[in-house]
Amino acid sequence: MPGIGARSAQRIALHLLHAPEQQSRDLASSLIDVREGVGFCVRCGFYAEGDLCLICADARRRAGVLCVVEQPAEVLSLEKSGAFQGRYHVLGGVISPLDGIHPDSLAITPLIERIEPEGISEIVLALSAGIEGETTALYLAERLAERPLRITRLARGLPVGSNLEYTDEATLQRAFEGRVELG
Amino acid sequence: MPGIGARSAQRIALHLLHAPEQQSRDLASSLIDVREGVGFCVRCGFYAEGDLCLICADARRRAGVLCVVEQPAEVLSLEKSGAFQGRYHVLGGVISPLDGIHPDSLAITPLIERIEPEGISEIVLALSAGIEGETTALYLAERLAERPLRITRLARGLPVGSNLEYTDEATLQRAFEGRVELG
Repeated sequence: MPGIGARSAQRIALHLLHAPEQQSRDLASSLIDVREGVGFCVRCGFYAEGDLCLICADARRRAGVLCVVEQPAEVLSLEKSGAFQGRYHVLGGVISPLDGIHPDSLAITPLIERIEPEGISEIVLALSAGIEGETTALYLAERLAERPLRITRLARGLPVGSNLEYTDEATLQRAFEGRVELG
Repeated sequence: MPGIGARSAQRIALHLLHAPEQQSRDLASSLIDVREGVGFCVRCGFYAEGDLCLICADARRRAGVLCVVEQPAEVLSLEKSGAFQGRYHVLGGVISPLDGIHPDSLAITPLIERIEPEGISEIVLALSAGIEGETTALYLAERLAERPLRITRLARGLPVGSNLEYTDEATLQRAFEGRVELG
């Protein structure tokens, strides 16, 4: 289990041995309930208890904007940040031929099929800021180029609170290239 | 000395004791030479051996663009990144009333006095991405507002190679706000 090493595992095991037997039964049944009850949203690929996830089912989300991410866990980070009010689309990864991940291994066709029925006018590509994320973003931009869509990607630059002296060179270059007008 | 703890200090001291006496004399005179020989550029505030630093004296630097930084050490980082070809201006800090740093404690007047003689058309504010850096950037933008200048600041966003899942919420917000059109 991630984050649980041998010592923690032993501590948990001993705790359960000393606790009432019911606690182990409760934990076991919770584990099975979660595993059986949580699947993926048929529309966006985020975690869902039914067919649709809570975000796709929420009528208060801003319609017309989709944020494309690689993995469902990233939706959680973005939701915590409160930066985005629209709905998501989980690709399932990024294009990486060396790892055998080609465009058709990703949820790209389902993305394209959402555009018209949902009246999407902007797609924000929130992919990781490495080479594979960039490649995937460019590929998607090309695939979507002929549609009347605004296609954007998240800004690259200095993370908030960072100090120039300790910022890597590639990030400094991107921060310079992407500099914005003030005032 | 930064980066030299008690153990390193002892190791260096013992090394010098066992090495030929001349090594200690050489080190001592180098220290004095550096301290006496290196000052600050009278124009930009970066390290300099004479009146002007190597960058201000270099005729191949792109004229007309100044990059404003907080400290001389940041010039070194930016130079290593190769992102910028113009000249610099070292403010000496950021506005921070709680620490007693007011606008007149910074090299703002010298900055303004460089604009006309050097024919500056763009000032890039490369200040740290925290509240004090932002405040200082806004203050400078206001002070310079009436001049025919392009005032820009470095992009805020995802650092290169970063993963959305481990990016802090404030940076995600900035990356969303600053998103750019693709293709």
